[in-house]
Amino acid sequence: MSDPSHMRPLVWERGALRLLDQTRLPQAEHWVTVGSVEAVADAIRTMQVRGAPAIGIAAAAGMAIAARGALETGQPVDVALEHAARTLGRTRPTAVNLHWAIERALQEARNASDAATVVERLDRLVQRIIEQQLTADRALSELGAALLPDGARVLTHCNTGALATGAYGTALGVIRTAHAQGKVAMVYVDESRPRLQGARLTVWELRRLGVPHTLIPDVAAAALMARGEVDAVVVGADRIAANGDVANKIGTYAVALAARSHGIPFYVAAPVSTLDPHTPDGASIPIEERSFDEVRVVDGRPITVTDTPVWNPAFDVTPADLVTAIITEHGVLKPPYDEAIRQAAAAATE
Amino acid sequence: MSDPSHMRPLVWERGALRLLDQTRLPQAEHWVTVGSVEAVADAIRTMQVRGAPAIGIAAAAGMAIAARGALETGQPVDVALEHAARTLGRTRPTAVNLHWAIERALQEARNASDAATVVERLDRLVQRIIEQQLTADRALSELGAALLPDGARVLTHCNTGALATGAYGTALGVIRTAHAQGKVAMVYVDESRPRLQGARLTVWELRRLGVPHTLIPDVAAAALMARGEVDAVVVGADRIAANGDVANKIGTYAVALAARSHGIPFYVAAPVSTLDPHTPDGASIPIEERSFDEVRVVDGRPITVTDTPVWNPAFDVTPADLVTAIITEHGVLKPPYDEAIRQAAAAATE
Repeated sequence: MSDPSHMRPLVWERGALRLLDQTRLPQAEHWVTVGSVEAVADAIRTMQVRGAPAIGIAAAAGMAIAARGALETGQPVDVALEHAARTLGRTRPTAVNLHWAIERALQEARNASDAATVVERLDRLVQRIIEQQLTADRALSELGAALLPDGARVLTHCNTGALATGAYGTALGVIRTAHAQGKVAMVYVDESRPRLQGARLTVWELRRLGVPHTLIPDVAAAALMARGEVDAVVVGADRIAANGDVANKIGTYAVALAARSHGIPFYVAAPVSTLDPHTPDGASIPIEERSFDEVRVVDGRPITVTDTPVWNPAFDVTPADLVTAIITEHGVLKPPYDEAIRQAAAAATE
Repeated sequence: MSDPSHMRPLVWERGALRLLDQTRLPQAEHWVTVGSVEAVADAIRTMQVRGAPAIGIAAAAGMAIAARGALETGQPVDVALEHAARTLGRTRPTAVNLHWAIERALQEARNASDAATVVERLDRLVQRIIEQQLTADRALSELGAALLPDGARVLTHCNTGALATGAYGTALGVIRTAHAQGKVAMVYVDESRPRLQGARLTVWELRRLGVPHTLIPDVAAAALMARGEVDAVVVGADRIAANGDVANKIGTYAVALAARSHGIPFYVAAPVSTLDPHTPDGASIPIEERSFDEVRVVDGRPITVTDTPVWNPAFDVTPADLVTAIITEHGVLKPPYDEAIRQAAAAATE
């Protein structure tokens, strides 16, 4: 990991997934190896691996691990895969990439002549998803960078870098490419309560990449815009509905409202695997609610009365009409989104 | 403090101020006694005492302590008061109540026949400001409660309770009174990063008062409104400019933008001492920027790369056109605010 531009936080080792534990950053760069379906599911649930595309890669790896386990124990591989699909599919409800990756694995396994063939195909699938993610990230990053002005001061929310995609990054990929082109004056990083992915992960990535950045409490984003200090907002997505409504990390919606009020373009950068033409709109996207203690406790210390009732949704929905453009590897989608999303999603399943 | 309705976090003891240390709550109810001008200034700077009206009381106490010190040491009392006014006036730039209280103390001291008279007058002034605050809080709370619907689900930001005013509370006073009238179904409490006054203080007060409450990360407020779960927003203020622009805890502006987008009334509750007719608009209000480590460190633990650059404004400005009404003890002010604020402020100086 000496060259930060080649950081790969997810490494597939044919039978096991090595991952950089995102719950320990930035204080420790701690790698873990997960070699069972349950361990993969746990890593997703506890957010050792997070970010919609990275969750997709981890889910595919979980399926490949299940197939290999079946081969070694003589269990029917289709039974093992169905079980793994259920276990992995239940971990986190919002990111569509999880289901997309599981579905791709089930399709690869169909019509295979024997278990060894399934294992071989799923090994290759995991590798292919990782490679495709890198290609997609780089392509959408080029397209997105072209949208930013010279000397851009960009605000982003949560983490959408290599850590979130296992490759180059989506919204943070756009920022990396724009920075490589000399166009980025400053990146404002929302800390992204309650899990603080901005403060913990995005700051760590930008520091490694040498991109100028300033951390802000989420509550300060609107005031920063009011001072005229933000030229564009770029965020990622966990699921984009057929009408262009965007589910993303909780807090994204408030940023979009503030951007609209100040006439600042609000871009969503996501691979086409994040598009979900089967979900009509944001109201139909299941929103995960997480543990109260994610809010009540920071790094082991209570920040409130310890048994206070909490509402802790992991995501919110930004309505399509607040989204200036959706940046995918197959092109920059503009409103009205319905037809553009249908076409881009179709291209992805080819 | 067995009856929570009579909590008095600031107690004036003729020569010293006893205060409930707000930096230690809710983990510890720790009282400190400050008996020098420097100690009062430190308590304000470090936010052992905070909240615009409570800062005003503390500043008046600091002036009274200075006068008593001069009497005891034989120092000229006017010199001591000028020095104290400068020291206290520099502690926090945004809340206008600080300057208002210092100015009242200087006026009391003028034309006094001797130092003992000044000491006597300032002792009485501190007591009077505390009593007036209680009267004002109760009056504006009655007026504000009348604005809330039955079964109200109210969202508030930061802390505006007894802790913030030394008396009954402003925005939280409105909520207390409405709760006593049986009108409050739920109070949603923004945690209020970075200092977490909502999570630390408002939750603690509402628990003691038996008011139903739910803590949310600040980032979730807009999503909660989108779900139709908020009937009204009530917040306090640190300074209200002549045109009705409101400086309040950072994050207030984003809440106001979200409330506007969802057609939810946005009320500001503040005593007339918070009105500043000498400041024409929000752009003219000095906004305090505080230490980077307030964002980088939570309870002694780093949450990011330890030397990350930060932007940490303590307040933001909500433009008057986002404010549905300003609830004062002299009446509920409605837009356009200019004339209403001039009249209410004039009433306050009588």
